[in-house]
Order: sequence, then C-alpha cells, then structure tokens
Amino acid sequence: MSNGSVVTPLSGRERYLRAARRQPVDRPPVWIMRQAGRYLPEYRAVRAKAGGFMELVRNPELATEVTLQPVRRFGMDVAVIFSDILVPVEAMGLGVRFDEGHGPVVGPAPLTREKVLALEPFDPEEKTAFVGEIIGRVKAELNGAAAVLGFSGAPFTTVSYMLEGGSSREFTATKRMLHKDPALFSELMERTTDALVPYLGMQVFAGADALQIFDSWGGALDERTWRQHVFPATERLICAIKALGVPVTLYANGADHLLEALADCGPDVVGIDWRTTPEAARKRVGARVALQGNMDPGAALATPEVAAAEAARTLRAFGPDAGHIFNFGTGVSQHTPPECVAAVADTVRNWSW
Amino acid sequence: MSNGSVVTPLSGRERYLRAARRQPVDRPPVWIMRQAGRYLPEYRAVRAKAGGFMELVRNPELATEVTLQPVRRFGMDVAVIFSDILVPVEAMGLGVRFDEGHGPVVGPAPLTREKVLALEPFDPEEKTAFVGEIIGRVKAELNGAAAVLGFSGAPFTTVSYMLEGGSSREFTATKRMLHKDPALFSELMERTTDALVPYLGMQVFAGADALQIFDSWGGALDERTWRQHVFPATERLICAIKALGVPVTLYANGADHLLEALADCGPDVVGIDWRTTPEAARKRVGARVALQGNMDPGAALATPEVAAAEAARTLRAFGPDAGHIFNFGTGVSQHTPPECVAAVADTVRNWSW
Repeated sequence: MSNGSVVTPLSGRERYLRAARRQPVDRPPVWIMRQAGRYLPEYRAVRAKAGGFMELVRNPELATEVTLQPVRRFGMDVAVIFSDILVPVEAMGLGVRFDEGHGPVVGPAPLTREKVLALEPFDPEEKTAFVGEIIGRVKAELNGAAAVLGFSGAPFTTVSYMLEGGSSREFTATKRMLHKDPALFSELMERTTDALVPYLGMQVFAGADALQIFDSWGGALDERTWRQHVFPATERLICAIKALGVPVTLYANGADHLLEALADCGPDVVGIDWRTTPEAARKRVGARVALQGNMDPGAALATPEVAAAEAARTLRAFGPDAGHIFNFGTGVSQHTPPECVAAVADTVRNWSW
Repeated sequence: MSNGSVVTPLSGRERYLRAARRQPVDRPPVWIMRQAGRYLPEYRAVRAKAGGFMELVRNPELATEVTLQPVRRFGMDVAVIFSDILVPVEAMGLGVRFDEGHGPVVGPAPLTREKVLALEPFDPEEKTAFVGEIIGRVKAELNGAAAVLGFSGAPFTTVSYMLEGGSSREFTATKRMLHKDPALFSELMERTTDALVPYLGMQVFAGADALQIFDSWGGALDERTWRQHVFPATERLICAIKALGVPVTLYANGADHLLEALADCGPDVVGIDWRTTPEAARKRVGARVALQGNMDPGAALATPEVAAAEAARTLRAFGPDAGHIFNFGTGVSQHTPPECVAAVADTVRNWSW
C-alpha cells in the first residue's frame, strides 16, 4: 500500500464509500452482482428451506442469511441485500409470480391505459416492510465491516417488466407504447418513479449505506430515444435519492452506446459491462463519476486460474486512478464454480499498485 | 434523381449490388431482415399449408413463394431466401427441432469433445440441395428484378447454437469452453467454417447474387476476446466466399463495440443496429465498407406515420454518401403491422437527395 493519504486498514464499508466518491483507497472494493445466488450451495440450502424465490425475498431472517453468505465466504466489501426488482411492482398492485425454471410473470398483461392510470405509489413501510427489516438486520450483523447496498430497478426496466409481462428480447409492447402513445408511456414512467422514490428512501432510512439502480434493459434503446423517453424519469429518481445523502450507482447492461447519457443522469457511479473498455469509458465520462465493473462473468465459468487472470487484467485496465469498484459486468451465472469467484475476490483483495 | 453518373432506372438487383460496392445509386436499396415472416398473413397461410417451420424451409416450392411475397408486396430490392441458420448445423449431423412457441432445440447437448471431433463437413449438393433449388427458383422468378441473397450464420453464432443447445442469454457453455479449452473451441470454429465455406459456395453456384453472414450473438463478447477467438474463423470464411465474386455482408446485433473488428474481417458491407449512429459508424470504419441498417424495428410497431418518419430520419442520418443499404437493425417483429413495413419501404423507394 503506497498511498499515504489513506488511513488503513479500511473497512469494506469505508473502502466502498470512498471509491464511490472517487476518494483514494488502499485497493478497489469488490462485490459481484447476484453474489447471493444459486451458484452457492449454502444459498440453495436456505432457499429450499424458504420454499421458493419470493418466499425467500419476503423472509427477513433467511434473506439476511443469504445476503451475508458471500460476504463471509469471499470477504466482499459490499453486502447487496437479497431482494428483487419486482418487489415494488407487486407493491404497486400488479401480480408477480416466479415459476421454477422460467422467468418472472408480471400481470395480467397487457397493461392497458386504464391499468396505467390506476397505478399508485405505495407506502413502503406498509407494503415492503420486509425489505427494511432485511437491511436493518444485515446492517446490525455487519457492524460496518461491509457496505449495505439497497437497490431498485430503474424506471425503464421496471416499466418494461410491467408492459412485457416478464423478461423480453424484443421489448415489443414497450417500444410500441413509447412510439405510439408517448404521453401514456411518460405517465407510466412518472408514476413508477413516484413509487420508487419513497421505496428507495425507506431503504436509506432502514440503514442502506448506498443504492444501486438497475437499468438492465436500458441498452435496448438507441441514445436519442433513451434521452428523450427515459432520461427525464431516471434523472429525477437519481436526483431525489442523492438528496438523501448516500452514493448512487446507475447500472445498465449492453449499454456502451449510452455511457454519456447514463453519466448525465448524475449518479456517483456508473456500472459498465465488459463490452466497454475501462480506458475508453474513463475518457468518455471524465472525472465526474466512479466506474463499476466490468469483468465478463463468462470468464469465471472456467478455472480459478483463468478467473484470477481475467480479474487482474480488469484491474490493470481500470488502472490506479481513484474511483473503481470491482464487479462483474452482469450478474454471476448460477453455473459458476464458487472457487472461481473466490479466485476473483482474492485477486482484488490482495491487489496493490 | 440528381446523380448523373447513374443510368436509370436501376433494377433492384443492380441497386443493391452497386450500393454493396459503394458505387453511386439513384436511392438506397431497401430490404428487411426476416421480411418473409409471420407478420404477413400470406406467409402464415403458406406456413400452415407446409405444416411447420422446418417443413417450409425444406419445401422449395413453398419456400420460394414466401421468399417472393415481401418483394411483391413492398417492392423490396432484395429477396432474402427463406431458410434458417440451423440448416447447416443439421447437415453436420446434429439434431435440430423447432417447437411451436419456443426457440430451436439443437442437440443432444452437451457438445462433448468426442462429438466436436466427430463433426464433419457435408456435401451441400447432397444434404442441402433444397437450398440451392429455392435459390434457382427465386432467381428465375425474379429475372433480375431484385437481388437474390443467400446466407448462413457466422462461425461463432453457429457454434454457440451447437454449444448452448439453442438460443441463450448468457452463453454459459460457449464462454466456458472458450475460456477453459480454447484449443477445442478453436477446433469447433474451424470445423464449422470448413462446413460453411462449401455450403455458401453452393448457394453462389445456385445463383445467389450476394451473401450475408449473421453473427447474431457475436456482441456477447468483448472486442479483445472476439478478436482472439472469433476473428480468425470469421475472416477465413469471408475471404473464401469473397473469392467467389459476390459481395458479402457481415451482420452482428448489439455489437457497436465490435464495429472496427467486423470491418477488419474484410466484408463488403457491415450491418449495424440502431444502437450505433450512422454518422459515428462511418467515421469509425471510413470508406472501406458499405453500411447496412439500422432502424429500430420497434418504431415499426406503432403507426405508418411513426414508421415513415423514423425511416426518413434513418436515411438522413446515413446521408447521401454512397454505400448505404436500408434495413432494420434486427429482424422485423412478428407483431408488426404490414402497413408500417409498407410505409418504411415506400419512404425509401420514394427517397431522393
């Protein structure tokens, strides 16, 4: 450790919060999207006990346990709460169902004008108290050892789940409404944002140290369309939650072409995937945001040696510049050997410039 | 028409072949990926007669009919033969099944080392004679009115269907082999290319005026990995079929980050999607290739007015520079109103600078 301006040892929480604000750190903080998940045998054991995915999401005791598992096993600097981006969709009054082996079903589709105009913000303390309880429990268990990260979907991604009735490849219903009835699409985006602001606010009041907004599907739009139809609600959401005093990450997948637009929304951190090179990303966004990412989780499917080499290559590509949070470019696959994730985490944890 | 160096009227075939070689044309040629498809009632009627998707692919009389339908209805400049990129996969000895409402199933998965080493090139005249017959029939019917476009999957996309056993989001099996056993992955890529070269050659001998290589899934890899593991076979394929004297298009979806790498493979035309802006694409690749694309088919889900406006915007973005072939950035959705496709085709056909 050569950086004299950092008091060490930093806790994981301090390391993450400093990096998110582009302050000097001893080495990049590390966590992995979907780190509490099916690739871990200890997760599968707890999930079997819970009965199902949404049952686990709604069970504060068991959700706390799976949230902490990867922090314990790999020494992650961040504990991302075990939850789902469809929790606020259900709280807004739509049906959400997870069928084993299939994606989520949101419905009933289609989302008509009548149903859009009936969508209401909800009281997060009443409808989603379990999320706050998970955050409080995780926070107490960690006692500052790792940052507690809350999250939600971004307005566009949340809305596209509502319109498509689940995951999608073509986003037919979403693009149809956006182009055919932009006023109704905008109404839906704003109503969703009105619900997400207090939902994320509740997470901060419950103890979340930071928040991440997942615009997992945002990359489906070209930049001009994204700026016109998605930017306003996304910027408003980020602006509102930044006022709560915690750092905010905006992540999108397959969105190399949106990098400047994402940074323009004003987050503290932009999450990028492996399609964007770290060097080019830093040139394009300048010093205004920290960057999170961006190893291809596909390289963690092979061997610990390959995974460690790819993690090291990723660290070198970001360079010693302050403001890098190590992560994969998307969630870890359920087929990943845990020893490959360990090799990645160890590589980052032992890194020094 | 203000360009004095073009003898008019050009046939659709001449217009397409000139644009593919960056020679002056009266207006950009137009066709649409998956233009012979389920959004057309006349297609659905013929497919019902055939019995199923692969039955239609293997029926030269009916496949010729659906190939010609969009050329007749919309005045397209290109007749892309009705076929499937899994035809050569089946001819290589793997099972291919299309279940109604689901994607293709290729198998049996997994593709072990033993099975990779058993894959052999096939005699296209013997195993895929129906493809040549469709091309001959379409050619005779069109008599030069539109270009006859043959195609295949690119080596990576073909191989990933084999490894994943169908469509995929994460490309788990493909990335695992690529990272864990790069020599076996390379063997699979080369064996597949050895089969694709004569398969595409047969299409040219049968009368195809041009060929398109679909690397639909290539965008799943970062540029460094793509150049290392995918470029060699792709370049070899393109080099081999360019020697046959027809123009070759290399298309990839969600591959803005690969644009230079795709152009480096040496195709005449690179197909881009709506995530890449035409102005930036032209700057990045210079004058060495024509560009095909790139309207979001999502804008054709709305109204003819919206679709026509988006087509005009696309034409203006490419500008009067020679070497633009109008297309969508990916295949037309089955939910598209045919009158929206008509509005797009009419906008391009009536265009003048």
